Amino acid sequence: MSIRVGIVGISGFGGGEALRLIAAHPEFELVFAAGSGSAGSRLADRFPGVPPKLAALRIAPWDPETLPDLDVLFASLPTGASAEALAKVPSRVKIVDIGGDHRYAPGWTYGLADVWPDRIAGQSRIANPGCFPAATLNTLAPLLSAGLIRPEGIIIDAKTGISGAGRGGGDSRFGYADSNETLQPYGLLQHTHMPEMARTIEGFGGSARGLVFTPHLVPMTRGILVTIYARGSATTAQCLDAARDFYADRPFVRVTDRPPQTKWASGSNLSFVHYAADPERDLVIGLGVVDNLGKGAAGQAVQNANLACGLPETAGLEGMPVWP
Amino acid sequence: MSIRVGIVGISGFGGGEALRLIAAHPEFELVFAAGSGSAGSRLADRFPGVPPKLAALRIAPWDPETLPDLDVLFASLPTGASAEALAKVPSRVKIVDIGGDHRYAPGWTYGLADVWPDRIAGQSRIANPGCFPAATLNTLAPLLSAGLIRPEGIIIDAKTGISGAGRGGGDSRFGYADSNETLQPYGLLQHTHMPEMARTIEGFGGSARGLVFTPHLVPMTRGILVTIYARGSATTAQCLDAARDFYADRPFVRVTDRPPQTKWASGSNLSFVHYAADPERDLVIGLGVVDNLGKGAAGQAVQNANLACGLPETAGLEGMPVWP
Amino acid sequence: MSIRVGIVGISGFGGGEALRLIAAHPEFELVFAAGSGSAGSRLADRFPGVPPKLAALRIAPWDPETLPDLDVLFASLPTGASAEALAKVPSRVKIVDIGGDHRYAPGWTYGLADVWPDRIAGQSRIANPGCFPAATLNTLAPLLSAGLIRPEGIIIDAKTGISGAGRGGGDSRFGYADSNETLQPYGLLQHTHMPEMARTIEGFGGSARGLVFTPHLVPMTRGILVTIYARGSATTAQCLDAARDFYADRPFVRVTDRPPQTKWASGSNLSFVHYAADPERDLVIGLGVVDNLGKGAAGQAVQNANLACGLPETAGLEGMPVWP
Amino acid sequence: MSIRVGIVGISGFGGGEALRLIAAHPEFELVFAAGSGSAGSRLADRFPGVPPKLAALRIAPWDPETLPDLDVLFASLPTGASAEALAKVPSRVKIVDIGGDHRYAPGWTYGLADVWPDRIAGQSRIANPGCFPAATLNTLAPLLSAGLIRPEGIIIDAKTGISGAGRGGGDSRFGYADSNETLQPYGLLQHTHMPEMARTIEGFGGSARGLVFTPHLVPMTRGILVTIYARGSATTAQCLDAARDFYADRPFVRVTDRPPQTKWASGSNLSFVHYAADPERDLVIGLGVVDNLGKGAAGQAVQNANLACGLPETAGLEGMPVWP
Repeated sequence: MSIRVGIVGISGFGGGEALRLIAAHPEFELVFAAGSGSAGSRLADRFPGVPPKLAALRIAPWDPETLPDLDVLFASLPTGASAEALAKVPSRVKIVDIGGDHRYAPGWTYGLADVWPDRIAGQSRIANPGCFPAATLNTLAPLLSAGLIRPEGIIIDAKTGISGAGRGGGDSRFGYADSNETLQPYGLLQHTHMPEMARTIEGFGGSARGLVFTPHLVPMTRGILVTIYARGSATTAQCLDAARDFYADRPFVRVTDRPPQTKWASGSNLSFVHYAADPERDLVIGLGVVDNLGKGAAGQAVQNANLACGLPETAGLEGMPVWP
Repeated sequence: MSIRVGIVGISGFGGGEALRLIAAHPEFELVFAAGSGSAGSRLADRFPGVPPKLAALRIAPWDPETLPDLDVLFASLPTGASAEALAKVPSRVKIVDIGGDHRYAPGWTYGLADVWPDRIAGQSRIANPGCFPAATLNTLAPLLSAGLIRPEGIIIDAKTGISGAGRGGGDSRFGYADSNETLQPYGLLQHTHMPEMARTIEGFGGSARGLVFTPHLVPMTRGILVTIYARGSATTAQCLDAARDFYADRPFVRVTDRPPQTKWASGSNLSFVHYAADPERDLVIGLGVVDNLGKGAAGQAVQNANLACGLPETAGLEGMPVWP
Repeated sequence: MSIRVGIVGISGFGGGEALRLIAAHPEFELVFAAGSGSAGSRLADRFPGVPPKLAALRIAPWDPETLPDLDVLFASLPTGASAEALAKVPSRVKIVDIGGDHRYAPGWTYGLADVWPDRIAGQSRIANPGCFPAATLNTLAPLLSAGLIRPEGIIIDAKTGISGAGRGGGDSRFGYADSNETLQPYGLLQHTHMPEMARTIEGFGGSARGLVFTPHLVPMTRGILVTIYARGSATTAQCLDAARDFYADRPFVRVTDRPPQTKWASGSNLSFVHYAADPERDLVIGLGVVDNLGKGAAGQAVQNANLACGLPETAGLEGMPVWP
Repeated sequence: MSIRVGIVGISGFGGGEALRLIAAHPEFELVFAAGSGSAGSRLADRFPGVPPKLAALRIAPWDPETLPDLDVLFASLPTGASAEALAKVPSRVKIVDIGGDHRYAPGWTYGLADVWPDRIAGQSRIANPGCFPAATLNTLAPLLSAGLIRPEGIIIDAKTGISGAGRGGGDSRFGYADSNETLQPYGLLQHTHMPEMARTIEGFGGSARGLVFTPHLVPMTRGILVTIYARGSATTAQCLDAARDFYADRPFVRVTDRPPQTKWASGSNLSFVHYAADPERDLVIGLGVVDNLGKGAAGQAVQNANLACGLPETAGLEGMPVWP
């Protein structure tokens, strides 16, 4: 018997990617889709490649009080827009919140699925990590867990494809001609994702004091790379070994022998990590790659829903990345 | 019991896409991969996102005389490089040739799967259409079949993403900096794909005299759009209706109400067609969109193999396109 | 003594390119810039690379009744937004209108500068051709003038970079993630640029009946290519020779031996034309390349202003295209 | 009387950009161009937009013993390929070496023109900084000079457009389909540009011990951004003020109030720097933007040649960046 799922925020890129993954999921049946911008349209009007079984599903306006009977709701709403509404969803409906309102909120489980799958199993309120934290924390967790780096003074130089900025609602900074062929740093020494990362880092012990996070917009549609500079005296081999141990039984994280590039993950839920260290400089460089819409959003959301529902963790997520 | 398949030409883009599709196919088991450039490597060395079950498969040099036991061989070799070698493959191994050497060759079935699935069922030597002909012929077939356009004097203005030029073997014309941010027409009044298209058009009756084909390289990785100008007095509605009838039971062709764009098909085996006609000008415009590596190569190859093996035509091909 | 010039519409791409050209012009002195979106800013706030001499110029709101003393005004306003306002500009101020409101309007000269420079010399109300017509008409003019093609039934398959859609004002169709890696045909059998092109074609004699124009958005910032299919029995050599004769003394049009690509013109006022013909098919293919912001907008506007002011036609326009 | 200049390495991107700048230079006359790949061609065959005055200049094979009479030679040869040949160029010919063989070589002046113009004036053997060092050192110089950061432990996270990898000679890593839509880190903890940067940093005093440099290939044609993490207790305002003082009379460096993006410099010799600091974290972030082919190669080369020849430093370099 299939699991009845819904998506709210279907007009955004995260919601759209959730649709793509759910449409191919062996156990999930999409019975509900809501989105402000597209309410009233059929799915096929907005997604010309949707499979016939879903083509006629009509996009509803988003109202948590008139939900159909659902087992799981994927919420992909702008940060700040979801807390009140999701509080009205009946508790028997599991929620995976791709948006930013419930990360480390009371009553919600932080869904860093590759690192803490056991915490997620059976839960009904799961907050997906942000896209930058997903890439960062998967890279740092093995080192922190093994004590190979110190938690203080970590520098994260992060780069994201432009879909990470969302559909933009008409912000001309994200218009094609304005953002093509240019690399844009932004938000220096600001803090949107910092508390989430600091708190997770500190979950491994110690203080994340001095954390630095610098995001950049890269002229490509998808993909995140974080280049992390941490302090520690481990060797490259120790770091790689620690990560291979840490992720030995985990299906989605690949520890690679060479620097990963973002397209390796494109269209998939995979996460690539790599390390290079120089004990003489007390330096460990970590590289982490994810698809911001995959592991950084809808992929990890489906992984979390699988864990929450007791399904195989990889259900619906086994497709290879798209190359080139 | 699974069907044992092999790929030759795994280093090229078509071979790589075949790998992606086969890895997710419910009935196919990849047991053999060959490629000159990558022989000796494990699949995981070349394809970092390959699933664990295939990671250790070692890429063989291509030698048709030392093939393992196979049910189906997908061949994706440069045009001119495959005829002699494929002739040595035992007849019990079905071949789908993605390359250009066997289109309309004796003993080979022309694999235009959306148009003539019955011709392909059970065959063992199938020549995949070229990527431009795939997009073109799916667009023209309903009109020719219904007599809504005349076969003479058709003009095909074709645009392809740069993966259509292949990996390039170091041709600097296809280097990033040389081919980015520019649109390159080429091959004016030349004929590589013309005979294949003319012959298929004439298969519906009449002469394809005066056929014109102008290809252009577009600065994007994947995707083909053909903009076709044909002569006929049909209305837009007649053309759309004819296509909806023609493809009523076909799973991969979508007749759309508005002009399709290439990304609608990206990563999928879908084919989009649309028409606009002006009887006063004796003009029918047809638009056809495919992914050059999907319907234009590996997608249609898997579809052909499904038909040849008596599997459901959509097996392994149901994934939605990747957007954005 | 320098010529005092102003720009209205400085926030748009056409206005910005006019600024770039005027800043490097040996005779023009920019003394006025207006733009709704950016009024109140200094030029350096909007254009970080503006030369020091212009950095502090403050962008004014656009009000034709409070213009400073000017010799030339470049207007780059959305079509439909300029006619009433420009009518209030004193007649001693020469206007070059890059926008679409005055093409073939009474009292305005059609500024197809490479073809009809003599018509423009000394004029004070000049309507710049549209970007698609600029590319198209430069390509067709030599053939029409020499009688090598017939004016009826010309098909123009046109492709433009996305800056051609303007800054978009937040239309998500032109957002990066939505328009990257995709090719978008639009406006089939519609007519925005058709009357302008038909009228110009008919200026060489005969009827432009049956003209077809199909535009496409290409995922690149700048550049236009038109691929034109016309009827005529000329040979390739006759077409190339006719164009070389026609443009023998003209500084900006290059007749090339091979198909031009859009980046050849990028950042310049150049126009490339090429032809391939097949008398047996009664077919002439013309290819025309311009930068939509160069010859298609600000470049031709400066050229027109040079002609209008009696300056050397190439003043300020001699820079080589930017490659790669 | 004009200055007679030559370019060797005209087929590469750096050589091509030198051609573009020299063609528009008020004092330089290009009388010689050499390049292995294109020897025998006319300039117009390789550069369709070259001005008529240079169109017929024939590209020579590169032989330092048969040079014509020259005042300045711009050399843009692969690293490792130029030392022996350039040693044969007569001493009366000034050389600006854009390639990597003479940086900090005996007898050669290091041409960091915005920082040390006086060292370059009148010299005849000038080694252009590398593209990454150019961006980095312009950003660090004001802080080091004012003692606002410590020279130890500087981390440089560098990002370059793909033209920075050169034309590639057929390396498929730089093929369009392979390098589009992906971000590629490379060369972790390796040293190509490190000694040059360390030596320059140490030129301001102290030790550059612990320097870290991590380059990334960004899917865009041009542009470099360096994101630099340094230790120091300065405030943001102190850093910005120091840079404004340091570059007060320098024409090409712009100290900006907000993070610069790479396209701000595109096609120009400009250099943008910006800083954000947090004394509590003992942290100064510096951002530096240049065009890798402008300030990072041909632009700085022309600036150096201007200084060497006693011309105005900005001659031929005043063009605004191309936007969008």
